[in-house]
Amino acid sequence: MTTVPHEIDTPEIMVDREILARNIARMAEGVAAKGLALRPHAKTHKIPEIAELQLAAGAVGLTVATIGEAELFADRGVTDLFIAYPLWVGPRQAERLRRLAGRARIAVGTDSAEAARAMGAALGEAAGTIEVLVEIDSGHHRSGVAPAQAVEVARAAADAGLRVAGVFTFPGHSYAPGMPTEAAAQEQRALGEAARLLADAGLEITRVSGGSTPSALLTEAGTTTEVRPGVYVFGDAQQLELGRCALEDIALTVAATVVSRHEGDSVVPRRIVLDAGSKVLGGDRPAWATGFGRLMDFPDARITGLSEHHATVVFPEDAHLPALGERVRVIPNHVCVAVNLVDEVAVVTGGRVVDRWRVAARGMNR
Amino acid sequence: MTTVPHEIDTPEIMVDREILARNIARMAEGVAAKGLALRPHAKTHKIPEIAELQLAAGAVGLTVATIGEAELFADRGVTDLFIAYPLWVGPRQAERLRRLAGRARIAVGTDSAEAARAMGAALGEAAGTIEVLVEIDSGHHRSGVAPAQAVEVARAAADAGLRVAGVFTFPGHSYAPGMPTEAAAQEQRALGEAARLLADAGLEITRVSGGSTPSALLTEAGTTTEVRPGVYVFGDAQQLELGRCALEDIALTVAATVVSRHEGDSVVPRRIVLDAGSKVLGGDRPAWATGFGRLMDFPDARITGLSEHHATVVFPEDAHLPALGERVRVIPNHVCVAVNLVDEVAVVTGGRVVDRWRVAARGMNR
Repeated sequence: MTTVPHEIDTPEIMVDREILARNIARMAEGVAAKGLALRPHAKTHKIPEIAELQLAAGAVGLTVATIGEAELFADRGVTDLFIAYPLWVGPRQAERLRRLAGRARIAVGTDSAEAARAMGAALGEAAGTIEVLVEIDSGHHRSGVAPAQAVEVARAAADAGLRVAGVFTFPGHSYAPGMPTEAAAQEQRALGEAARLLADAGLEITRVSGGSTPSALLTEAGTTTEVRPGVYVFGDAQQLELGRCALEDIALTVAATVVSRHEGDSVVPRRIVLDAGSKVLGGDRPAWATGFGRLMDFPDARITGLSEHHATVVFPEDAHLPALGERVRVIPNHVCVAVNLVDEVAVVTGGRVVDRWRVAARGMNR
Repeated sequence: MTTVPHEIDTPEIMVDREILARNIARMAEGVAAKGLALRPHAKTHKIPEIAELQLAAGAVGLTVATIGEAELFADRGVTDLFIAYPLWVGPRQAERLRRLAGRARIAVGTDSAEAARAMGAALGEAAGTIEVLVEIDSGHHRSGVAPAQAVEVARAAADAGLRVAGVFTFPGHSYAPGMPTEAAAQEQRALGEAARLLADAGLEITRVSGGSTPSALLTEAGTTTEVRPGVYVFGDAQQLELGRCALEDIALTVAATVVSRHEGDSVVPRRIVLDAGSKVLGGDRPAWATGFGRLMDFPDARITGLSEHHATVVFPEDAHLPALGERVRVIPNHVCVAVNLVDEVAVVTGGRVVDRWRVAARGMNR
């Protein structure tokens, strides 16, 4: 059991270097064995040191969510970036994309003929330097078009001077109990249908991109050419409760201190309060989750309430309640939003802090 | 209707200077009329410029949640700070508190004899420079003790050399439909009982502190001496849906762009997707909320899904769907967590950006 190193003040995010390395290697090997390319989503970590480890393990490039994240990682020398987002590109975004395309291979998403035409017009002569992937809705019903509409969007993009490189989807509905296998199958079908329709229409594509952390290793090569998992580097309570990772795969925890402790009675619950709230754990709580995160060393405890600086943790009647001042490790529900709340993370190995990494792309929402 | 100023790229947080000033003045006047002191909670805004406006309007000092926030506002010249949190104080926290007490009046919370003894021991000779308020649980069942236990905690604090100044509570259960009035009454009763018991025990106290934004103006002077509302400066979708503020009181919105638009059919919902996700709005969604925030100019729209960079907004069948590329204003559910996600906010008046304020205490969780 890794305890919280003495030099840590709570709350602080800790990354276990060995588990991180193992997670990166395992996904890289699993994806390579399937004959797929790995393009990890860097919005999970926003940390150049981790991107380097992913690229060294064989990733073909990175996925990012915003132009700002692309700029940050291009600054750090990453030369192949996919902004997997249906950007609305006006003059200021176009200028930034033009500059990016001057120093890296840049692909972006689009999910409508109108957005593709606006992007082409804003980019002007630079349109041909940007690759476009049409976003397909494979069942998540967020952004993306039905496969049957992919040709219309792709044609508009091509007519606007953009280079249509392929299609992509995000199977966000894989983040629910029992869903990873079904969502992965829907993803494969939707991407396959869109790719076939584009080929039938004479649009040659080379990139068919899918794969969340729950579905990445359920993806088979064939139509799909690459996967974009993000969370796998750290794991989190969502992946744990979905059965997509084990406790020993959790590389990121939040060190927290017991600041309040109540044995409970007929009126108030038996509980402790930790100094890690939503401003370090993030507030995400899907309806199927058992709480607002999990405690690493207390599997039966449940975080029943989360305020900005308090986590209320309820214990079963017969379980040991940690002492006041005791330091524990909390597994956030959704690691991508937790990392985005801090300026740096403590890198831990053998019970000691061996480094600190800056969350260099923190807050880059634009 | 304030539109999104041209110079804003989305997503970005905008603060309306006039509405902010009106909110600050209204709370200051309302609290003063009741004969109470106002000690606004600065964790909501984390912005020194806003703290200055609150103090200029008559606030007696600020409330903060962490030692780090206290240090930041002390650096900016605030001389009366209450860390309304049951701190667990070790040697490093004690050293920071000692330094703080050298340049400002500092009060902290405690809710157990054990934590009070640990704090007194860690502070050593400096214990007498720190005021302590015992936290009372008035029905929220997070931290805090029952009024009947207040004497035991206060005695331990006094025996440990700390200056026992009073009691405080946070009526967090006022954040639910129909609850503000009842929670305010419970708060008054709990504080009143604790104060009476302390007086009976011969412990003289001068500060009885309560009041969230929903309950602050429901508080009556008498036992209570001060209130600590935070959210009132901006308002948010929670306060709106609780009926504690009106649309015209909302001073903070997130500018967002429509990046995806779908008329919908029998399979997929009629919706738009905005580029403002949980990484700028925050992920808070109480069970009673109608969604993950509200749209300022589309009262019938509901944010049914929120990812890191996408808000999925569903519209009624007969309502106008905003166009692709259109810019809208989103009201976050919980403004305190939204502000903490950005480095600065745009200050807007008359449809123009007139200033930018740094969120100077962003991320100060320790």
